[in-house]
Amino acid sequence: MVTASSGSRRTPRSRPTLEVSVLRVGHRPGRDPRLTTHVALTARALGARRMYLHPSDPDLTERLRAVGRRWGGDFEVVPADEWKPLLRSFDGPVLHLTMYGLPLSRVLPRLSRARRAMIVVGGAKVPPELYRLAAYNVSIGSQPHSEVAALAVTLVSLLGLPDAGGMRGARFRIVPRARGKRVVERRERP
Amino acid sequence: MVTASSGSRRTPRSRPTLEVSVLRVGHRPGRDPRLTTHVALTARALGARRMYLHPSDPDLTERLRAVGRRWGGDFEVVPADEWKPLLRSFDGPVLHLTMYGLPLSRVLPRLSRARRAMIVVGGAKVPPELYRLAAYNVSIGSQPHSEVAALAVTLVSLLGLPDAGGMRGARFRIVPRARGKRVVERRERP
Repeated sequence: MVTASSGSRRTPRSRPTLEVSVLRVGHRPGRDPRLTTHVALTARALGARRMYLHPSDPDLTERLRAVGRRWGGDFEVVPADEWKPLLRSFDGPVLHLTMYGLPLSRVLPRLSRARRAMIVVGGAKVPPELYRLAAYNVSIGSQPHSEVAALAVTLVSLLGLPDAGGMRGARFRIVPRARGKRVVERRERP
Repeated sequence: MVTASSGSRRTPRSRPTLEVSVLRVGHRPGRDPRLTTHVALTARALGARRMYLHPSDPDLTERLRAVGRRWGGDFEVVPADEWKPLLRSFDGPVLHLTMYGLPLSRVLPRLSRARRAMIVVGGAKVPPELYRLAAYNVSIGSQPHSEVAALAVTLVSLLGLPDAGGMRGARFRIVPRARGKRVVERRERP
């Protein structure tokens, strides 16, 4: 469920103890990286702790590190050339997002006690093993759409809407405005 | 707020009377259309009625029409070569999604009586007029991420999670499953 925050920096998330990781499989380095970049930025902005990336892509890892240097937080893109052992040894429920899965609303209640969850986001071709290795195959609407959208809805359903307070260690912070843009830069201490 | 549906075909949406349109500005036809395709598929799957597209792109309009022939519903991609008059004459609140805007949680309560809403999704460069023409500049988290993610979260917050029952007139329908894929094809009447 979405729990609306007040937008204040100190509003706790609805599930402060749930640590969410994302695994992106089927990335194609060298081809247009924009969709995987959107997956990673969405994971970061909506509260995931890290994104495992298969196959690894040092450029993308570095690009997200640069985002963190500017905008804060400790999100990281972790190379995952072996994703099956990663899922087998993961200490929490694994949710695989697929248009063929069960409705998210039916799966959410089963996750209420989890401390860690892994959300798996497929690319163009999804290895069939993924369906077996996931505890839950989960769909947002049983229609074709977008892995970015499915990830976003799942994260907000698990963690609530993100607050607007900026992330720890940010060099830049947005001041929310009704019109226009306002970004403040943190001053270094003299 | 998200209202979880039971996944049944007949579960009413939380706001059945709200009709949502999406306007995508700054699309670049001929370049990689995948992001705009994701925006359109997300709009359709999460309950928007139509997506206006600026500039127009007949290929993309046709591609979404083909999706509708297979998967049902009456979503359409409408060419919008003149987007400013469209926004000026729109009979309802216009929400422009931007990382610089006000938190969605602060804007949602102001929309509770709207019958129609327009969600504007920018591309790489957003015309400054958009900030003025929108009733609300809205951010999901005040962080850089993805217009697909922002649209998805906004639609689910306005309309609730989509149900899994398939759309009207669909030729194919997914039967949600815990494992694997099941798609049924509607038989034509003899």
